[in-house]
Amino acid sequence: METLVYFFPPIGIFAILYVIWRSRWVSAQDSGTENMQRIAAHIEKGAMAFLKAEYRVLFLFVLAIAVLLAFKGANEADSHILVALSFLVGAFCSGLAGYLGMKIATKANVRTTNAARESLGKALRVAFVGGSVMGMGVVGLGVLGLSCLFILYNNILGADGAWSINEVLNVLAGFSLGASSIALFARVGGGIYTKAADVGADLVGKVEAGIPEDHPLNPATIADNVGDNVGDVAGMGADLFESYVGSIIGTMVLGAAFVALPEFAGHFDGLGAVLLPLALAATGILVSILGTFFVKVKEGGDPQKALHLGEFGSSVVMLIASYFIIKGMLPEVWSLGGREFSSTGVFFATIAGLIAGLGIGQITEYYTGTGTKPVLGIVRQSVTGSATNIISGLGVGMLSTAVPIILIVVAILVSQHFAGLYGIAIAAVGMLANTGIQLAVDAYGPISDNAGGIAEMSKLPKEVRKRTDKLDAVGNTTAAIGKGFAIGSAALTALALFAAFMQQANIHTIDISQPVVMAGLFVGAMLPFLFSALAMGAVGRAAMAMITEVRRQFSDIKPLKDALSIMKKYDGETSEMTEEEEAIFNKADEHVEYDKCVEISTKASLKEMVFPGVLAILSPVLVGFLGGPEMLGGLLAGVTVSGVLLAIFQSNAGGAWDNAKKMIEEGVEINGESYGKGSEPHKAAVVGDTVGDPFKDTSGPSLNILLKLMSVVALVIAPSIALVGSGGDLKSELQPQAEEVSSMIESK
Amino acid sequence: METLVYFFPPIGIFAILYVIWRSRWVSAQDSGTENMQRIAAHIEKGAMAFLKAEYRVLFLFVLAIAVLLAFKGANEADSHILVALSFLVGAFCSGLAGYLGMKIATKANVRTTNAARESLGKALRVAFVGGSVMGMGVVGLGVLGLSCLFILYNNILGADGAWSINEVLNVLAGFSLGASSIALFARVGGGIYTKAADVGADLVGKVEAGIPEDHPLNPATIADNVGDNVGDVAGMGADLFESYVGSIIGTMVLGAAFVALPEFAGHFDGLGAVLLPLALAATGILVSILGTFFVKVKEGGDPQKALHLGEFGSSVVMLIASYFIIKGMLPEVWSLGGREFSSTGVFFATIAGLIAGLGIGQITEYYTGTGTKPVLGIVRQSVTGSATNIISGLGVGMLSTAVPIILIVVAILVSQHFAGLYGIAIAAVGMLANTGIQLAVDAYGPISDNAGGIAEMSKLPKEVRKRTDKLDAVGNTTAAIGKGFAIGSAALTALALFAAFMQQANIHTIDISQPVVMAGLFVGAMLPFLFSALAMGAVGRAAMAMITEVRRQFSDIKPLKDALSIMKKYDGETSEMTEEEEAIFNKADEHVEYDKCVEISTKASLKEMVFPGVLAILSPVLVGFLGGPEMLGGLLAGVTVSGVLLAIFQSNAGGAWDNAKKMIEEGVEINGESYGKGSEPHKAAVVGDTVGDPFKDTSGPSLNILLKLMSVVALVIAPSIALVGSGGDLKSELQPQAEEVSSMIESK
Repeated sequence: METLVYFFPPIGIFAILYVIWRSRWVSAQDSGTENMQRIAAHIEKGAMAFLKAEYRVLFLFVLAIAVLLAFKGANEADSHILVALSFLVGAFCSGLAGYLGMKIATKANVRTTNAARESLGKALRVAFVGGSVMGMGVVGLGVLGLSCLFILYNNILGADGAWSINEVLNVLAGFSLGASSIALFARVGGGIYTKAADVGADLVGKVEAGIPEDHPLNPATIADNVGDNVGDVAGMGADLFESYVGSIIGTMVLGAAFVALPEFAGHFDGLGAVLLPLALAATGILVSILGTFFVKVKEGGDPQKALHLGEFGSSVVMLIASYFIIKGMLPEVWSLGGREFSSTGVFFATIAGLIAGLGIGQITEYYTGTGTKPVLGIVRQSVTGSATNIISGLGVGMLSTAVPIILIVVAILVSQHFAGLYGIAIAAVGMLANTGIQLAVDAYGPISDNAGGIAEMSKLPKEVRKRTDKLDAVGNTTAAIGKGFAIGSAALTALALFAAFMQQANIHTIDISQPVVMAGLFVGAMLPFLFSALAMGAVGRAAMAMITEVRRQFSDIKPLKDALSIMKKYDGETSEMTEEEEAIFNKADEHVEYDKCVEISTKASLKEMVFPGVLAILSPVLVGFLGGPEMLGGLLAGVTVSGVLLAIFQSNAGGAWDNAKKMIEEGVEINGESYGKGSEPHKAAVVGDTVGDPFKDTSGPSLNILLKLMSVVALVIAPSIALVGSGGDLKSELQPQAEEVSSMIESK
Repeated sequence: METLVYFFPPIGIFAILYVIWRSRWVSAQDSGTENMQRIAAHIEKGAMAFLKAEYRVLFLFVLAIAVLLAFKGANEADSHILVALSFLVGAFCSGLAGYLGMKIATKANVRTTNAARESLGKALRVAFVGGSVMGMGVVGLGVLGLSCLFILYNNILGADGAWSINEVLNVLAGFSLGASSIALFARVGGGIYTKAADVGADLVGKVEAGIPEDHPLNPATIADNVGDNVGDVAGMGADLFESYVGSIIGTMVLGAAFVALPEFAGHFDGLGAVLLPLALAATGILVSILGTFFVKVKEGGDPQKALHLGEFGSSVVMLIASYFIIKGMLPEVWSLGGREFSSTGVFFATIAGLIAGLGIGQITEYYTGTGTKPVLGIVRQSVTGSATNIISGLGVGMLSTAVPIILIVVAILVSQHFAGLYGIAIAAVGMLANTGIQLAVDAYGPISDNAGGIAEMSKLPKEVRKRTDKLDAVGNTTAAIGKGFAIGSAALTALALFAAFMQQANIHTIDISQPVVMAGLFVGAMLPFLFSALAMGAVGRAAMAMITEVRRQFSDIKPLKDALSIMKKYDGETSEMTEEEEAIFNKADEHVEYDKCVEISTKASLKEMVFPGVLAILSPVLVGFLGGPEMLGGLLAGVTVSGVLLAIFQSNAGGAWDNAKKMIEEGVEINGESYGKGSEPHKAAVVGDTVGDPFKDTSGPSLNILLKLMSVVALVIAPSIALVGSGGDLKSELQPQAEEVSSMIESK
């Protein structure tokens, strides 16, 4: 029985204590004027309303899957019930992390605005601390949940070798599936929500009624701001939670191959390689928390630098720490299958992952950052109209896939060269070790975005908005980097799970020259296209519903109607209004029914994500049971490869369009002519930005979930498929069983 | 020694006689008024100018490759020289077919216009007969070249078993590489040409100067019309020539596995399975020629029906014929590697390919045709502006990948189920058996498009333009179907070549779980994105060059300048002009320097396609020799899967946008409001159409070439790679790791 694992839960708890401490600190900040508080209350209420609705659906969904896991094909009923338990705990942890993160993010936004009335440094502090709650919540609950379940299965139920480590890990894998289920809803649903609100608010508010962005008279504004939290805080959090947990479990499964080796006898009962990912993750927590204290900026200073210092600083510390951990937990050298392994090799694999992760982030910044060559190219092409703007944006997106893929491939080859398949998996862990602070930086973005919105809506003085804009601009870059990081980690995690799947399904090769495998590859590669199409269609429909509702309020709510006409009359210049008119104008927003819009986005997003979700979960199950494990392997390879490519393409195209628009808004000069807001090129760039929105915030990110979720499902059902035995031809005797599986999932 | 093969050259010659006969017939038609002839002469001159320039470059390129093939790694110098010979013959045949097709297409266009002054039926006849020259030229030269080389290598040089059939086919494969090289230039270069001219003509002509489309005062009009021939006639022809030849050779290589079997002893010296694809192709020629006689329509009749009758009629005849051919050429049953084969099974495989081909065509029509649900969806989304139009178009394109992929997968599984890998290859042949008439229908499209342009430019009465428009509308649908067909056949051909490559490289598995293979898969899947990005960038740059030139002519050429101002003055209404003004206006186009624009498009397209071309040819060579055959296999699988998906996505999105625009131009009613040409939704749809142009005519089609070319290169270098000891150092170094993988798993 191994005792090292008992050190991990306390570290998880430590992270959660940090979360509580920071939450208290944020809540203790002053939330500003009554007006600000009223608006913030709307956003908080809306966000929580979404979570409540989402979690209601999730509860049923999770319960259904749990039942399915517990009683399906019960060859060893007890362990199946424990898979269900792991699943429930995983779902609960991810859900709780999301809840905490959103709760504090929606408190931090208005307090950031208020702090911005004082100084930039204070505002950055509040926004970042608010984000760190999400970050530490995710890693804390991830490590806590995993280590406790491992202790339960390995050290208590499986004490004295009652269970093989493989049985333990089979059961533990359910945790990852739980995380993925939440991620599916949070990321896909959240993505649909945020863009439905955004597009809806823009098209009917800005374009039709001519109301400026974030104006309180636009009924969809609140939903729009809620969307930032729902999509970019909770969604991103659940996404990285899934990667984080998935990479750890995938590595543990592969590490199990070493347990029996004599070289490992002296290393934690042979569990050295199994526990290593958990140890690295736990250390990452401490390093991340340390890193948060480096994020500081003075008035007039550069927030970007502060955030970079936090990120890169902790990466360096993590690197040094992992060297000693790896050296301490693994034997100097060992061999398996006529191949030499060394702890140094494993360390190099970790570095490969870490570097690839940072590298992809930097490349993403290059292709999407303001003022970079590619984005400048899009700006130039905007002069000849929206068509050329779109074409060049699509070109940039496609071009931007090359380097990240090379980086991933190099990471695969290097880590595998130094430490085999285990190396690839540990590379994923290395990439994700700093998730805590990485996610804190990601979540900081939407918080400052919200802060700006609140400043606008509560009509605060210009310099406040200037400060929040500065934070927001940085947020856009960090968001782009974060998206790249999320994709990269999703890719390596999927590969780790893929390798783990093969091991558990007990298949030795997945031969593309076998037509079933090639068929799986084709179908798998097609799914991300289908998934993206569905996501974009969903945004379109949901946005339409939003537009209809906003139009209804504009025509039905009298005070709002009056205010709009007054606004038109004076072109928004309150100064010239008569006292009476100004009174009507200023009180109007109290009559706006923000909740209706929030409700529409919520309902639409949850409804729209059911089919894609079912698609993601069912396809591996059906292919696995009907086509056999090799075909399933082909399916996974296909979905991973094309999913990663489409995700990079869409996220970067979207990011590039976004910043091309921003550049023109700040004013640019193209062959002698200078253009700014409202110019023809700007109009063209706005079209590009609108096209890019669902790309970068809905369909793109959803693909991370798709490829991880499918690999996890495969990993969980692997043992059952293995029992079925491998082979290409259809297993007619299993058809009824598989149909039963599907109908049970569908019926829920 | 086998004599059946001697029957094939005559059939090829028969096709060429048909080509000569039809060419004569077309040339004999009246080419109309002097004005029409002058314009047509411009187009013909431009098209030939492009071919001349292209072939000059090609000559050097082909020569270089030939030398490379002849002396590279000369382990068996003589056979290498013969590979070079096959390569030269293949390149020559493809080039000649392209030349003939273009030559006649550029004669047929004006004669179609003239026939349209008489009747719709006559016009259809001329256009279709003109197209059939391209169709029969391709299949005739394909069969003639292949069968003659086979006779040379097998029956003369390899007489009395001096050569093994494998050596013969190795050498023969060079023919396919030659075809691919031409295809690369014709399709990619042609695609860049046609869109550079089109976009250039539209942006500066329509948008800036306000000249209607196809107006003689626009210097880029001729280049635009030349582009239709260069891209859609020569390009499509070379594309299908490549598929046609590739599928035949791939099948022959796989058929060689059966030669030694006792069951085949009585079947053409065991060559039954090797010669079958040639026999089917030869029969397809006769059937196609027969089919051309069914394409007739009366005034007021539906040209679509006439073309369908020709296509489907010949498909049915071909189906019946193939049954007897297959039954006659293969033994009833035989077995290899413990698996049973039957001639009936091979027949079913052929059907699977044929059905998949027609099916993909129909699906393409559904997603891109006027009035279909998806296109209507785009029309509706155009009301809310170009952004929503673009988003829904992208959605339709992505969605449209699902069914074609399923069809391809089913074709793979069915044909493999009935006849193994040989079955997959023969399915490709089945799909391509009717290339003759299929291509005739494809080439008919651009001819009638040109006919319309000439009618416009030579100011013929409205009813003429009406008739040509009717032909043109049908042409758009057939073009869409043709594109779908080209993609589907490219996919199956690539798979056939892929299987052939494995056999020649003497590798038995391509295991995705090997990191090198996974790495190859990732890089391969990325290449189509990179390739598309390069193609789109090329169009952008070339279009800019065109725009600059047109602007120059508008400002430098006095008569043109005057004519434009007169045109503006009277808004193009000649009736109100003074005699003097009218004279200037009507004579102005004699001063327009069309050739300059043609030259620019030509130069640009040839320059721009070099890098993508090098990329396509070098990547398999580098990966093959440095990474080993398995990694190359992964690369091919990746490029095939993601190439097919991106090609379908881009072609269909482009087609759908195109017809959405056309629908609005014809006038549509959306929730009560009715919209037409010039309306806001129309403007939005024009943006979509412009974005779709490079998608469907440049980057999309180029991918067909990319995936076939790379597989052919792999097939040709396969023996050398196999000699390198199944791949370079990396491979041998990875060998133990491959074992480690399996033993890791065994240790479970």
